[in-house]
Amino acid sequence: MRVLGIDPGLRAMGWGVIEVSGTRFGHVANGVCRSEGADLPARLLSLHAQLSEIVARFAPASAAVEQTFVNKDGAGTLKLGQARGIAMLVPAQAGLPVGEYAPNTVKKTVVGVGHADKRQVDHMVRMQLPGIEIAGPDAADALAIALCHAHHAQTAGRLEAALRGARGGRAARGVA
Amino acid sequence: MRVLGIDPGLRAMGWGVIEVSGTRFGHVANGVCRSEGADLPARLLSLHAQLSEIVARFAPASAAVEQTFVNKDGAGTLKLGQARGIAMLVPAQAGLPVGEYAPNTVKKTVVGVGHADKRQVDHMVRMQLPGIEIAGPDAADALAIALCHAHHAQTAGRLEAALRGARGGRAARGVA
Repeated sequence: MRVLGIDPGLRAMGWGVIEVSGTRFGHVANGVCRSEGADLPARLLSLHAQLSEIVARFAPASAAVEQTFVNKDGAGTLKLGQARGIAMLVPAQAGLPVGEYAPNTVKKTVVGVGHADKRQVDHMVRMQLPGIEIAGPDAADALAIALCHAHHAQTAGRLEAALRGARGGRAARGVA
Repeated sequence: MRVLGIDPGLRAMGWGVIEVSGTRFGHVANGVCRSEGADLPARLLSLHAQLSEIVARFAPASAAVEQTFVNKDGAGTLKLGQARGIAMLVPAQAGLPVGEYAPNTVKKTVVGVGHADKRQVDHMVRMQLPGIEIAGPDAADALAIALCHAHHAQTAGRLEAALRGARGGRAARGVA
């Protein structure tokens, strides 16, 4: 199953696609969409076109977008929100389920601590996807988001299987 | 020429279409798109589909979106930004030029003062588009944005014409 991770941003939107088979992860592709255009509508249109092409080309089965921290800069948050709207719309248009993860959740899942810095995230992405070439910090973040999504999906899957097993066991023993 | 005004919002996105011929304005249609769906990607997808249908149905020649004030609520600003991303993307996808106006500019243009309240905006929209039925406050705001855009386009047009006239006049009199 392929997972697309997206690190939303208006100027630079990081993306990364990984292949998940059982408990193993493999790298497929990563990169950064840069918004081109004279004004905001043109830049959003450009991001939408680039991201749509990535979804069409790599055909992921699900996507995950970072739920970026809201900082104190309102104008910056509005810009980020506009880019994030496109980042969520594109996979939704392709019919993919879209997960959202807070930066701390991504770091805690991938690095083990919620307050990890960019270098640690980059390091752990390289550890989990050996031999990878990364297009930049935004692409590294996007791959971390994809890895986080894959980990959470596996945990959810194991929980479900365990619950099915437990229910099955009780039923077999006649405990209704 | 038809102008589409959009008042962006995640829960409710107001829209209004007016017809501009010379210095006269006429009402075409107005309404409110409500986002439906279990999660944020589904809601953005729903807004995108509704707004795309409005653009296809009323075929405006240009669009204008409110450049909403950034308030102190970061989470609210991020939500608004996501909706605003869709509001700008849809007309851009249809190849329309998209104008942006601050709320104060809209109020100052339509009512005459930048600090006008909602009732005054509603009143002036009704004055300029007699006999109109308005779908709600968000639709009234959207119509005000469309009127503001039409006013500014006219002023820009008159300025251009005046400049062309002045240049023509000078050339005719031999003043290079």
